[in-house]
Amino acid sequence: MRLSRYFLPVTKETPSDAQIVSHKLMLRAGLIRQTASGIYAWLPLGLRVLNKIEQIVREEQDKAGAIEMLMPTIQSADLWRQSGRYDAYGPEMLRFTDRHEREMLYGPTNEEMIAAIFRDAVKSYRDLPRTLYHIQWKFRDEVRPRFGVMRGREFLMKDAYSFDLDEAGLQASYEAMFVAYLRTFARLGLQAVPVRAPTGPIGGNLSHEFHILADTGESAVFYDAALEDVSRDELLSADASTIAKLTGLYAMEEEEHQKVENCPVSADRLRTRRGIEVGHIFAFGTKYSASMGMTVQTRDGGQVHPQMGSYGIGVSRLMGAIIEASHDDNGIVWPDSVAPFQAGLVNMRADDAACAAASDDIYAKLQAAGVEVLYDDRDERGGAKFATMDVIGLPWQLIVGPKGLEKGVVELKRRATGEREELSVEAALARLTSQ
Amino acid sequence: MRLSRYFLPVTKETPSDAQIVSHKLMLRAGLIRQTASGIYAWLPLGLRVLNKIEQIVREEQDKAGAIEMLMPTIQSADLWRQSGRYDAYGPEMLRFTDRHEREMLYGPTNEEMIAAIFRDAVKSYRDLPRTLYHIQWKFRDEVRPRFGVMRGREFLMKDAYSFDLDEAGLQASYEAMFVAYLRTFARLGLQAVPVRAPTGPIGGNLSHEFHILADTGESAVFYDAALEDVSRDELLSADASTIAKLTGLYAMEEEEHQKVENCPVSADRLRTRRGIEVGHIFAFGTKYSASMGMTVQTRDGGQVHPQMGSYGIGVSRLMGAIIEASHDDNGIVWPDSVAPFQAGLVNMRADDAACAAASDDIYAKLQAAGVEVLYDDRDERGGAKFATMDVIGLPWQLIVGPKGLEKGVVELKRRATGEREELSVEAALARLTSQ
Repeated sequence: MRLSRYFLPVTKETPSDAQIVSHKLMLRAGLIRQTASGIYAWLPLGLRVLNKIEQIVREEQDKAGAIEMLMPTIQSADLWRQSGRYDAYGPEMLRFTDRHEREMLYGPTNEEMIAAIFRDAVKSYRDLPRTLYHIQWKFRDEVRPRFGVMRGREFLMKDAYSFDLDEAGLQASYEAMFVAYLRTFARLGLQAVPVRAPTGPIGGNLSHEFHILADTGESAVFYDAALEDVSRDELLSADASTIAKLTGLYAMEEEEHQKVENCPVSADRLRTRRGIEVGHIFAFGTKYSASMGMTVQTRDGGQVHPQMGSYGIGVSRLMGAIIEASHDDNGIVWPDSVAPFQAGLVNMRADDAACAAASDDIYAKLQAAGVEVLYDDRDERGGAKFATMDVIGLPWQLIVGPKGLEKGVVELKRRATGEREELSVEAALARLTSQ
Repeated sequence: MRLSRYFLPVTKETPSDAQIVSHKLMLRAGLIRQTASGIYAWLPLGLRVLNKIEQIVREEQDKAGAIEMLMPTIQSADLWRQSGRYDAYGPEMLRFTDRHEREMLYGPTNEEMIAAIFRDAVKSYRDLPRTLYHIQWKFRDEVRPRFGVMRGREFLMKDAYSFDLDEAGLQASYEAMFVAYLRTFARLGLQAVPVRAPTGPIGGNLSHEFHILADTGESAVFYDAALEDVSRDELLSADASTIAKLTGLYAMEEEEHQKVENCPVSADRLRTRRGIEVGHIFAFGTKYSASMGMTVQTRDGGQVHPQMGSYGIGVSRLMGAIIEASHDDNGIVWPDSVAPFQAGLVNMRADDAACAAASDDIYAKLQAAGVEVLYDDRDERGGAKFATMDVIGLPWQLIVGPKGLEKGVVELKRRATGEREELSVEAALARLTSQ
């Protein structure tokens, strides 16, 4: 993509209401723009990152055997009356009436809807187990939206729902999602700590939250230091022993930790850090299958309410969490897996015909090799171009200038480390195309 | 995908409120499920088709130079007060207040929001022209939702917005989208007729609707018979002469046709058919840039309101239109370009170990070759399996039975023609992997 034809409104100012670094950087780097309190438009660069995060989430759901579908954003209040949650859910639920005065709502979650769909479609044990998921916009009318996309009102969530014949099946479905979550966050370059959670308004008997450790997290997490020693490779190849280890190690949010009378972790091994909740999984048994009247025939001819679980990931929130975990004074430092482009190509002198021709040629070759490249071909000062590249945080910067070209070299900079290297055009292309 | 682990609630009954064939078939084939009046959940098979349609739309937008972003579904009423449309838009706009009593709405379109974003980000002629688009859920509170996803309330729309310095630029942007639309519909296997349209509430001075000709269309279209002679190749390679030809040939919706005093088409060349509107493009000049206070500096230091256009495609509606145009008595006949899977693999005897092993082997080979295949491995009667395959309309069916295997053959059926052919497993695999 040529920057001269792109839409990337990078700004130097930081809006006064942006309190945390990810919010500031998302605005400065032209990723998002606020359109109402707690509601954001995703500008082209931001959408590219959002799509990459979403795709990693999707791939790990698919790998876990979950099946993708898509439920609508608007729901009927009647659905929520069947489960009894319509009156119980607080003012975070956006409620309204349509032109025929029917009560409707913008879905904050989908337990009722998926239960109704599954109830009407499935009657036999042969069609279980199943886990269905969708990635859809949700709305929660936060009383005080803040921290940009971290606590916005309209947000993108992946929510999965599992249906099993018995508790052992539910346990297996829960563990499959547990593994998917570990792999998802590891692929996003994040260290996530699974925290045993109270089940709250969704109800049930087993639940974990996944927290990214970052100083700007909204809650304090107390955990066993051994959790810090789990390697990325262990998370990616999570097996039964990894799950047993992770679920066995102590980790609690502050409020729950305070209730624990005898913490099993000795003081020298107990760590506390701030955490950003990016995922939450629940095994809640028959709460919704019973209230929504869902029954299936068992192999021996009986009838049971399926055992259900639900599994959420805050897809849009993850972008903020990734930036909180990966930035420096000059801007964002994207992990390779979610970078909007892999490389930025900087023509230092757009007014120099030879330099422009060489840059155009490199751009064409990178594109032909399938490298996602953002080409700054604008007639601007080099300093402004460097500042833009640093704030938007692409993993590599390839800098082409007249002096280097005379010597037959270009400069390759790794954003994360700041390392710069002079090398031939061919060597630079080889480096980028082998990533 | 193994059907035994999929979620495909195919039904034999047709709900009584489904009046048109696409609505009936989408319900019967397990593509969608109604969750409220005019609101549908996209079941796994339906989502696969929706994603393919969306991707073709996206590729043609990108090819035309448009840049993708994503605006939120919920908008502030204040935005619409700036353009003066808040009061003018009728009861189709879903309005509500949030918990702080701020007036909000579910966006039916995005002229105001994109104008505000562009206004705040762009100040110079150097940043024009630009065309931005997004593919997002919209809501229009239809008084009488009907025809399934063809006239639903929550629907997926691609809407693009162009910004140019002058009218000549707007004309060029309009034509680029015109070409993108011709290519998009041709790739979807549809014959679309561009109809000169009145500009209506969006305002402006040049507008075309794109209609798919189908007996169940909601409006009558009168057009020059020569429009039927435009070939698919002409549409795919649309150049200036194709545009001139298509925009020059007479085509009008009934209401507009009635107003024409001297129809330029002779009676023997005038055709009339029902049309389904799947796209609508407008060049409306400075209507929104002026009302929303958008100005940019020109090359000579002056200030102008950019010339704008907007360009919509009903992405979810297209699924209904494609089915209206391509089905038979047994079910849907998907064009290859949007089929949810390219092939269905039918094991005729899941209880026969040799037949199951042979089917499993073919399934593994098709997957390894990258063929999207839905494998009916269930223990069901052959007749039920054939009926399912026909109603869901995958382009190819590969049928594996014990008798054929004894002779070393399988059966390959082309859904569109019903042609069946016996051939060796190797030959069948070669045929499917070369598609």
